[in-house]
Amino acid sequence: MSNGTSIDEQELDALDAYWRACNYLAVGMIYLQDNPLLRGPLEPEHIKQRLLGHWGSSPGLSFVYVHTNRLIRDHDVDAIFIAGPGHGAPGVLGPVYLEGAYSETYPDKGEDEEGMRLLFQQFSFPGGFGSHCTPELPGSIHEGGELGYSLSHAFGAAFDNPDLLVVAVVGDGEAETGPLATAWHSNKFLSPKRDGAVLPVLHLNGYKINNPTVLARIPETELVSLLRGYGWEPIMVSGSEPMDMHRQMAEAMDHCLSRIRAIQQQARQTDEVTRPTWPMIVLRSPKGWTGPKEVDGHKVEGSWRSHQVPLKDARGNEAHRRALEDWLRSYRPEELFDDHGRLVPALRELSPRGTRRMGANPHANGGLLRRDLRMPDFRSYAVAAGTPATLRAMNTRPLGEMLRDIMKRNPGNFRLFGPDETSSNRLDAVYEASGKFWLDGMLPEDADGGHLDPEGRVMEILSEHTLEGWLEGYVLTGRHGLFATYEAFVHVIDSMYNQHAKWLAMCRDLPWRAPVASVNLLITSTVWRQDHNGFTHQDPGFLDIVVNKSPEVARIYLPPDANCLLFTADHCLRSHDNVNVIVCDKQDHLQFLDMEAAIRHCTKGIGIWDWASNDQGCETDLVMVGCGDIATLEALAATALLREHFPALKIRFVNVVDLFRMTPREEHPHGLDDADFDSLFTRDKTIIFNFHGYPWLIHRLAYRRTNHGNLHVRGYKERGGINTPMELAIENNIDRFSLAIEAINRVPQLAATGAHVKEKLRDEQIDCRRHAHEYGVDKAAIREWTWPH
Amino acid sequence: MSNGTSIDEQELDALDAYWRACNYLAVGMIYLQDNPLLRGPLEPEHIKQRLLGHWGSSPGLSFVYVHTNRLIRDHDVDAIFIAGPGHGAPGVLGPVYLEGAYSETYPDKGEDEEGMRLLFQQFSFPGGFGSHCTPELPGSIHEGGELGYSLSHAFGAAFDNPDLLVVAVVGDGEAETGPLATAWHSNKFLSPKRDGAVLPVLHLNGYKINNPTVLARIPETELVSLLRGYGWEPIMVSGSEPMDMHRQMAEAMDHCLSRIRAIQQQARQTDEVTRPTWPMIVLRSPKGWTGPKEVDGHKVEGSWRSHQVPLKDARGNEAHRRALEDWLRSYRPEELFDDHGRLVPALRELSPRGTRRMGANPHANGGLLRRDLRMPDFRSYAVAAGTPATLRAMNTRPLGEMLRDIMKRNPGNFRLFGPDETSSNRLDAVYEASGKFWLDGMLPEDADGGHLDPEGRVMEILSEHTLEGWLEGYVLTGRHGLFATYEAFVHVIDSMYNQHAKWLAMCRDLPWRAPVASVNLLITSTVWRQDHNGFTHQDPGFLDIVVNKSPEVARIYLPPDANCLLFTADHCLRSHDNVNVIVCDKQDHLQFLDMEAAIRHCTKGIGIWDWASNDQGCETDLVMVGCGDIATLEALAATALLREHFPALKIRFVNVVDLFRMTPREEHPHGLDDADFDSLFTRDKTIIFNFHGYPWLIHRLAYRRTNHGNLHVRGYKERGGINTPMELAIENNIDRFSLAIEAINRVPQLAATGAHVKEKLRDEQIDCRRHAHEYGVDKAAIREWTWPH
Repeated sequence: MSNGTSIDEQELDALDAYWRACNYLAVGMIYLQDNPLLRGPLEPEHIKQRLLGHWGSSPGLSFVYVHTNRLIRDHDVDAIFIAGPGHGAPGVLGPVYLEGAYSETYPDKGEDEEGMRLLFQQFSFPGGFGSHCTPELPGSIHEGGELGYSLSHAFGAAFDNPDLLVVAVVGDGEAETGPLATAWHSNKFLSPKRDGAVLPVLHLNGYKINNPTVLARIPETELVSLLRGYGWEPIMVSGSEPMDMHRQMAEAMDHCLSRIRAIQQQARQTDEVTRPTWPMIVLRSPKGWTGPKEVDGHKVEGSWRSHQVPLKDARGNEAHRRALEDWLRSYRPEELFDDHGRLVPALRELSPRGTRRMGANPHANGGLLRRDLRMPDFRSYAVAAGTPATLRAMNTRPLGEMLRDIMKRNPGNFRLFGPDETSSNRLDAVYEASGKFWLDGMLPEDADGGHLDPEGRVMEILSEHTLEGWLEGYVLTGRHGLFATYEAFVHVIDSMYNQHAKWLAMCRDLPWRAPVASVNLLITSTVWRQDHNGFTHQDPGFLDIVVNKSPEVARIYLPPDANCLLFTADHCLRSHDNVNVIVCDKQDHLQFLDMEAAIRHCTKGIGIWDWASNDQGCETDLVMVGCGDIATLEALAATALLREHFPALKIRFVNVVDLFRMTPREEHPHGLDDADFDSLFTRDKTIIFNFHGYPWLIHRLAYRRTNHGNLHVRGYKERGGINTPMELAIENNIDRFSLAIEAINRVPQLAATGAHVKEKLRDEQIDCRRHAHEYGVDKAAIREWTWPH
Repeated sequence: MSNGTSIDEQELDALDAYWRACNYLAVGMIYLQDNPLLRGPLEPEHIKQRLLGHWGSSPGLSFVYVHTNRLIRDHDVDAIFIAGPGHGAPGVLGPVYLEGAYSETYPDKGEDEEGMRLLFQQFSFPGGFGSHCTPELPGSIHEGGELGYSLSHAFGAAFDNPDLLVVAVVGDGEAETGPLATAWHSNKFLSPKRDGAVLPVLHLNGYKINNPTVLARIPETELVSLLRGYGWEPIMVSGSEPMDMHRQMAEAMDHCLSRIRAIQQQARQTDEVTRPTWPMIVLRSPKGWTGPKEVDGHKVEGSWRSHQVPLKDARGNEAHRRALEDWLRSYRPEELFDDHGRLVPALRELSPRGTRRMGANPHANGGLLRRDLRMPDFRSYAVAAGTPATLRAMNTRPLGEMLRDIMKRNPGNFRLFGPDETSSNRLDAVYEASGKFWLDGMLPEDADGGHLDPEGRVMEILSEHTLEGWLEGYVLTGRHGLFATYEAFVHVIDSMYNQHAKWLAMCRDLPWRAPVASVNLLITSTVWRQDHNGFTHQDPGFLDIVVNKSPEVARIYLPPDANCLLFTADHCLRSHDNVNVIVCDKQDHLQFLDMEAAIRHCTKGIGIWDWASNDQGCETDLVMVGCGDIATLEALAATALLREHFPALKIRFVNVVDLFRMTPREEHPHGLDDADFDSLFTRDKTIIFNFHGYPWLIHRLAYRRTNHGNLHVRGYKERGGINTPMELAIENNIDRFSLAIEAINRVPQLAATGAHVKEKLRDEQIDCRRHAHEYGVDKAAIREWTWPH
């Protein structure tokens, strides 16, 4: 690869020196707790008692970093850096420290000998900082602890950032993961006109922990074919001799930048945008590059043996320690650092300046750039609710209208994500503001309702991993979004939720990290409406994952109707530093609350529905609770049945929107305090709790509450198949009949008299099921049920 | 594509007629509840009240099916069929019914008019059968409800089945998922010598629910490059005119089979095996092929509008009903079925015979072929435990030795799966029996501890999705395996666990499905030992997912030491139809039980450790419980502290191996009955329960127990970073000091006297943490702690 760029020898020498400084720091971090400048021979006490960290991919990461610095400096590029193999953090920490960004964030680790000593000592050390590209690392938006998301994060960062270049190093280990393997296709969803650019550097260092990697061992013709097939133009940089590699890399980077700029320039001058072939780099260099060639008779550089710590006993074993000292001195630290331990001026010149330094780029601390959404008034999308539980609406449709107007009012600051289900989820009003982004090969029939749009900000690809990664990258760089997805398959991104929640929890302890918009997940097509998809599509268990994470981060809302959903979505889109999970079915449902009532109710997050209760001024006999749209409907119907059959029974009807209200206040900031909880749920009356999800989750949240002994929860218990909605409810005992029967069994004063009512209810239940099996639909009477007035 | 095969016109005509019969059945299933042979005009009452099912990919699926039948018949191929787009089940149900396999399994749906009527009526109908390739479908090992796993399942089926051909249809929607995108690389892990073949058919019908698909719209040059880059030889079959397509497809199938056989023959004649370029087919055909061209002015065939039900109001709308009748009659049913509704003899000839029919192939009901593992005696790997809690061992190492011998004794019947962590997980003894499968480009250094082996049965790729998919495919076709993986990242396959558990739960209701080996997951590198990986690597929440699924399927074991792990693993490897989750850390730990004691203890799954208890013959004051290796160690140390400081205190020490013992018997077959539970945990004494995972899981399991009010659980509560093991324990209050302090707070008779002991314990705790921060390691005294004797 040569495009005739002439690169100055002297420049390359300086680059190499800068890189040597990075490598010196990386080795120092892994091994040293003292004597950081090697002012004297390395003694056992200079070496940490426990050696932790990953050397293997560190030199490759800093190699890419310093070459990106060169590009930034020479061409005033606005760039951020994503390290897919985040465990190679020493390779990123080094250059971030050298450019001064680290010391500005952590003044105790200044650019001097003591600062360097602390940097070394606290790396991967209790009370110190992490050994991945954690939130603690200035310039990082991607920890790389769990592998697979570097590219989708990079694209998320580039969307709507036309001048940004995101350099994303993809490890060849990471490249074997599914999420990464499909994320290469993100180039089909990037506009050269409106979005920034992603420059992937596939780093083939050949090995994982103990194994060769697939992409490093397949023939190069296959590799090139694969990457071209993904739609990229791969530029190969390959070798191990540093100066030759610097030349190759500098040429490759120059070439890529000039291609990127040419693509962007061309696209930005025309109205006809087509998908370009973006350049990328394949960097093939030895694992543990510049480290020990051999240790104890085993090849180390260029082998999996350099994955973590190559000289394992540097403290106790004299030969290892001498080898470590030789290794450190091979970088010639005396040429790199001055007497005070600061990078020499000639090398400091090579660092970009100010916010052009990747460790200080505000895009990587996106909260700094975050502008609140210009929100329309959610009240204006209200559906007429009239008398509670008499009118019907599709719960998600008004939200679609609100999202449409948010999209209109916030160009470049909001996107909607979903796996090909925006219409199916009844959010299609959004297409009036923006179509689905699409560049590849339009067909005439696309004009008929296809909503494909080369300027679209609705992002649809059938990969929940990619969508979640894009959204995370988008919000971490200061923008806003919402991801609507199928309830059962949100489990596909369980681990991504876990990791993002952990990221946010760590950020809470870092005052310099400005708040970022929340990740908003709308979970729809829920378990209770799977008439034809059956058992595989029934899984409300994502909530069980969500509740495990930090209470500062996790939020769960189950709005029972359209107006409550509007309020909830408005609230979530204004929030920051949370993951908000909103569960709401997309289908036609009875509406319960007008907008003013919805606001009052959702502001509290939990409350009594007076219109459905008859215990006003009397002692309550039974607390009936609904949490979730369909669970609430059935609980209401059960309440109506009970009141019809037992007019003297005093029932309190409670609805829960904010699930964490159930948990004690000490456990979650949204937790109700015990006095309030007791006054809602009573201290000793029967509670029948009809829940959207797995029933035991409610016990897990509420087991410490006073009246827990009387709490009887119904929910999905893994019984289903091809069922009508009512039949599925019956199978899992969340239906009105089961609830009413349960109440008769549990409320002491009904136990004696209720026998014949139970029989009647059981007959009705059997009749419903028989009807379903005969006609394949629920009984019309049930579908059209309303609250009796 | 032409390789000169001459295909008979008459044969193609017959093939087409067979395919028309399939399509007729598919349409019938979606719409009809009566008049299956169209003996009279279609009336409203013949049409189901609710139209469910997916037409879009059905004709493509049956197209591939009938062409596979041709291959089977002409070349006596042993083949099974995997439908990635499993929601196109009508396209598979049709040919399975036509070949008679369906009626043999479900005699009520015989090969006659009444059988056909029932097939139609019960499809996707309450009380009927599912609309995906569910376990109910003979010949299916892959439901295709959640997309992404067709190829990894196919490879799992092919491993160690040298004569099997697995035809796997990959939908172009599914192809966008991460798991599928990386599963193409499975060809690097298939031996042409020892394994069978996978023939992927990438079915580009162009659309998902509302969107075009990525792979259908990129230029064909890119597509071909991509597939070649993945290492495949793609054969293109493209068009819409049926007879032309039949010819193309027949030629393509012939070509593929002859390539596959040539590859296998060559490999099986030599000792030098290299990776071949396997053929595959790209089938580009219209979505909803042969269906209505246009409905209500919209293009339907060849558009996303044919994804589900093209004529939505066939019952109520006369024009739709007429269009439906025309559509059905376009297949000329009178030529296809005789007067009784049975396929005419000339077409019946085209079905393969007996177990060559894909709906009757025993590989797809793998339990029929399952041979129990020849197990070595697990006792022979026992570690010396001596006096409890005095000796140390790495818990997983003896298991590695047992797996080695299982591997040796069961050639072709057992594999070990893991994402590049077999050595790191201390299971590397297995390499003495079998290396890691690897074909691609060996290097000289691989000989030095690389354990790469073109005959290996240890499967390592850095994709948990692929590994789990391979394992599932392997066990569903009658073999055995174990997947060892990192605790935090087992969440990557949460949704796969959910789906496999659902599959197994459904199989329980199908007596004709023979039991298959359990999926065994060994979860190691656990939350409590993440000294350098930090917060991202700390997540024990997979168990919270596991417990949601059917109690008939889910099993969780937390063996506290090496001997208990051996017993547990032996048990799991002998079990069937479960998912067994075993949690056990890989690092050096104190050993508690000798083998005889381990057998007694693990057989019960829960029990008192007498040697650690002092309440024999007295009233118990405190029940201390450990569940999980590290949690047990700390609970023991806390017990020792308490006994040292309060010699009169009567402590009972309980260890839990089988987590479901905690749940009531009515909830899970392993649940302890209440009387036994009460006798272990007492009815009214303080219980301090130290748990491996998130603490609330224990409450969720045990909230109904008599003494739940006195149950105090400690576990991981999302507090961590770079910590020594002891510091991490302290952060989450599972350490010995916190537990002892908690006991002092909770046991009434200690509350008054314990103050100074608490202070002492707090000082020790602070000292531990200070030491960690100073030296980066735990205090030697703590690392070397043993039970006081």
